[in-house]
Amino acid sequence: METYRQLRERLAEINDINRAAGLLNWDLQVNMPPAGAEARAHALGTLSKIAHELHIADETGRLIAAAAAELDGASYDSDEAALIRVTQRDYEQARRLPPEFVAELSRESARAHEVWVKARAENKFAAFAPTLEKMFELARRAAEYLGYTDHPYDALLDQFEPGMKTAQVRAIFDELKQELVPLVRAISARLDRVDDAVLHQEFDEDKQRDFSYEVIQAFGYDFKRGRVDRAVHPFAQNFSINDVRITTRYDRTFLNPALFGTMHETGHALYELGVDPALERTPLASGTSLGVHESQSRLWENIVGRSRAMWTCFYPRLQAVFPAQLGGVGLDTFYRAINTVQPSFIRVEADEVTYSLHIMLRFEIEQELIGGTLKVADLPDVWNARMKAYLGVVPPTDTLGVLQDVHWSSALIGYFATYALGNLISVQLWEKALADAPDIPPQIERGEFGGLREWLRANVHRHGRKYMPDELVRRVTGEGIQSRSYMRYLKTKYGEIYGL
Amino acid sequence: METYRQLRERLAEINDINRAAGLLNWDLQVNMPPAGAEARAHALGTLSKIAHELHIADETGRLIAAAAAELDGASYDSDEAALIRVTQRDYEQARRLPPEFVAELSRESARAHEVWVKARAENKFAAFAPTLEKMFELARRAAEYLGYTDHPYDALLDQFEPGMKTAQVRAIFDELKQELVPLVRAISARLDRVDDAVLHQEFDEDKQRDFSYEVIQAFGYDFKRGRVDRAVHPFAQNFSINDVRITTRYDRTFLNPALFGTMHETGHALYELGVDPALERTPLASGTSLGVHESQSRLWENIVGRSRAMWTCFYPRLQAVFPAQLGGVGLDTFYRAINTVQPSFIRVEADEVTYSLHIMLRFEIEQELIGGTLKVADLPDVWNARMKAYLGVVPPTDTLGVLQDVHWSSALIGYFATYALGNLISVQLWEKALADAPDIPPQIERGEFGGLREWLRANVHRHGRKYMPDELVRRVTGEGIQSRSYMRYLKTKYGEIYGL
Repeated sequence: METYRQLRERLAEINDINRAAGLLNWDLQVNMPPAGAEARAHALGTLSKIAHELHIADETGRLIAAAAAELDGASYDSDEAALIRVTQRDYEQARRLPPEFVAELSRESARAHEVWVKARAENKFAAFAPTLEKMFELARRAAEYLGYTDHPYDALLDQFEPGMKTAQVRAIFDELKQELVPLVRAISARLDRVDDAVLHQEFDEDKQRDFSYEVIQAFGYDFKRGRVDRAVHPFAQNFSINDVRITTRYDRTFLNPALFGTMHETGHALYELGVDPALERTPLASGTSLGVHESQSRLWENIVGRSRAMWTCFYPRLQAVFPAQLGGVGLDTFYRAINTVQPSFIRVEADEVTYSLHIMLRFEIEQELIGGTLKVADLPDVWNARMKAYLGVVPPTDTLGVLQDVHWSSALIGYFATYALGNLISVQLWEKALADAPDIPPQIERGEFGGLREWLRANVHRHGRKYMPDELVRRVTGEGIQSRSYMRYLKTKYGEIYGL
Repeated sequence: METYRQLRERLAEINDINRAAGLLNWDLQVNMPPAGAEARAHALGTLSKIAHELHIADETGRLIAAAAAELDGASYDSDEAALIRVTQRDYEQARRLPPEFVAELSRESARAHEVWVKARAENKFAAFAPTLEKMFELARRAAEYLGYTDHPYDALLDQFEPGMKTAQVRAIFDELKQELVPLVRAISARLDRVDDAVLHQEFDEDKQRDFSYEVIQAFGYDFKRGRVDRAVHPFAQNFSINDVRITTRYDRTFLNPALFGTMHETGHALYELGVDPALERTPLASGTSLGVHESQSRLWENIVGRSRAMWTCFYPRLQAVFPAQLGGVGLDTFYRAINTVQPSFIRVEADEVTYSLHIMLRFEIEQELIGGTLKVADLPDVWNARMKAYLGVVPPTDTLGVLQDVHWSSALIGYFATYALGNLISVQLWEKALADAPDIPPQIERGEFGGLREWLRANVHRHGRKYMPDELVRRVTGEGIQSRSYMRYLKTKYGEIYGL
């Protein structure tokens, strides 16, 4: 096992550098004084260059091949076989992109980001159009380098959701859309039955913070292995299996951002914190895909965090924290308020019913732009027409429409689908957890989350990146990613709330 | 200049990695959840290994030699010539220590630190003695590797105060001691004339913080280029010339730690913030030695921070912040309180009169242990005898005596002298600043510190590491490091306070 040991040591050093870069990035968003930006960009560039060079070096390839030979016959499920499998795949992917292309992509997306920020602020799609054209051209070139069999979009999607094919996702989304569009339409006819006015009051920030800490500690977030800070765009970041931090933001006049945002990031963090410690400092010590990651954040934020069960226990506590605001508001009103559905323009503010439609729109448009069947110039019209068709609303400006997302200007093309896949996976896992452990709902009503968390850890978290997303879902639930569970969940929950 | 450009780029990357390691260390002391320690140690080890390997690589040596040839004839004071000079010296020093020895030193000092922590807590010098023996043996070996002409201690001292020789420092300290011991004795006979009771009251931490921020912002610390956090052992750390952070601590029942500690770290930070931006990402972008660094922290903490001039302006503001505690206490009482002299056991708590004697004791003992004229077993007796001779007090336990400092167990042998050199240099610079700009004291009485700060920047800060410490002091003041100025300062100030 000498070669395997050498490979692991090399991967551990690459991991160390990447985690250090992670800290530089975390600090940049949480602590850094403004004047530190230029030097920080240099330091991040240097660290990622060094990590990349070590990763794609011939020596890495030699060690992988030799270690694979050494381990020949190791069981598929062993950490060793998984490490070789995943590292081999990462290595081949990384070697396919020429360093000059990686540098060009990084340069162009830095520039594109500036252009997008300005175009969005000024509501000028035309000013962004040539840059967007360029980003999709680069994405097409990336797809050619990465390789694909059916559709170039496969290569892009695979970067974010390893192993998933465009045709497979499209089939899932088409099924979902068929049921979701009518559901949104039915709810839209009854929007007046629910409102969230009680959430829009004055709520002291320190009290919001203390209450959210109480909630996430009950979920199982351990402040000895993490911390919570403020950031403009909240995120979770791991520096090791034992140091996974989250960030959040507070709105003094709206409960949702801090309360549900913190639950969401905690879902991501619990995943990283639950990885088997034996995988520390290996490329396996992380979530397996963006989709599965999102399944964890959505499960804690929505399935748990917006459930009647959880608030049966926690609502009296929240009322005690905010007696003037919520003392006279009943549990049912609160429950309905936090589950208000409202077809709207902005993806990141969308509720759990309409959210996936925002994604499908982007997923379709990306494929059409990559395939050349849609011209960038026609994009605003197509965007608005589909918003009308799927959600029944039309954004009054491009800033509230096609210009709203940071992804395309950041070269994150093929990424959006993972959000909706996360929604689907979250309910698939939830249904299986309840089948395995029917005690989970009564536990949650008592404010106990250990049963659910440990089920997730045993079935999902501990594996880290050992299994690919669809493979993992199959292993756990017995079938691949599908939309039926999610639709069943939505219809039951919102059917009751909206009296359908 | 193509080779010079290549050398600079290589040094810039090494700088980036070192700054990243700096952030990992800062985070470890400021933010890190306890469980993150193990992974952090790995990450720090990997980064310093990579930086060290890049630094000592043959390629670095080749670039230095080629760039030196390319720049032949560049003026001594040019940034280019200084970069070659300093880099050449750093490179040769680093190449002299075999990697196995560096690894052994790092391993042994990690182990020694544990032993020391326990021995100190349990007041058991005998338990630490074999480890201390080992650390001095390693220091002797380091000296042999590094090379010296007169005394092996030269090689150790040179690591912390480049270019200074043991004989030179000994001559300076001997002169200082001859005058300082009698001064301490004279003050000791009149200790009852001054007391610091007014500083030991209940002071709200947030108000302490706000007031200290007001002070350091007046000094010129810019929160757009830095930040202040809490740490158990306060320190300053630079991540670039435009991001230099300090840490501090608060004691709710004693004003000094936060107030003077923050000024002290601000002195360090202003030095790093004042380096010429043209030196960014080069090895010159830092203070030139620990001694000169300490001159800056002591200048702001003591010469300015404990001056009557400064408090003429700031004391009314401090009284307004703490009216119940200080409203009835006059400026003179406060001024005497913050300048209380008290011969005591612990170096880090010593006042500016007695502090240097704590250092001399250690400086002498280190040389004797390195030279073999003192046995580790005899150390506690020798320590206590010299405490009696220099300060007139004898520590009741070794925990309060020979076991108090972290340095020896951390392989920092040859370091202590820099603290006292810093005291001496601080007054040499101060006298020259007043000679050049006699307006400085009246400015300080008005709460204006720009004149002093800009003088320091122009004469000291901007040069970074371009000049060695004694060379820098000569350039600025016209003579090398000496003790007369410091003694003149102490005798004038404390003669008045203690009525000598």
